[in-house]
Amino acid sequence: MKNDKCTVLNFTERLGGKWKLPIINAIRKNETLRFGKIHQIVDGISRKVLTEQLKALEYDVLIIRRQYEEIPPRVEYSLTNKSRGLCEVFQAIDKWSRIEDK
Amino acid sequence: MKNDKCTVLNFTERLGGKWKLPIINAIRKNETLRFGKIHQIVDGISRKVLTEQLKALEYDVLIIRRQYEEIPPRVEYSLTNKSRGLCEVFQAIDKWSRIEDK
Repeated sequence: MKNDKCTVLNFTERLGGKWKLPIINAIRKNETLRFGKIHQIVDGISRKVLTEQLKALEYDVLIIRRQYEEIPPRVEYSLTNKSRGLCEVFQAIDKWSRIEDK
Repeated sequence: MKNDKCTVLNFTERLGGKWKLPIINAIRKNETLRFGKIHQIVDGISRKVLTEQLKALEYDVLIIRRQYEEIPPRVEYSLTNKSRGLCEVFQAIDKWSRIEDK
């Protein structure tokens, strides 16, 4: 299971798709974030899709959802140890984005 | 366009989904590869989906398709400058895969 082929496939099965990485990246840069703020930062995502993706990420232990019993209730999302470890992946993506297409 | 939000979203729009990164990774480690060999390496992909993904990657100038006029014709796939630059992303994914879930 630890050869590169499986590693990349495991990654894309877990984090593939358009939204999960941008959502994690938004939370990462703010430590904790509320739903409305994530919705504002992640460009073009609908509230419905964001709700689904947050649930999937929470289920997969890549984000933590904390609800504070206030009126109105406040919900904040933060990263887990595993998703905080994506820092280097984001750095590599950022570097890659600056390579010219030709 | 060059802030991090867009960078990650551009990446996932271009390379998101389950198969593109594993396909590029397979070719990367072999310099050039034929269809049958990619199909063998990328675990669980169907020939139909592989055909579609290779076409999309070629269209997006992330792989090069070269056909040699032999009988039977030989087709080989290789990476472009842009997709060769994903090397660090693969390294970061590999490192990330070794972080423990908790």
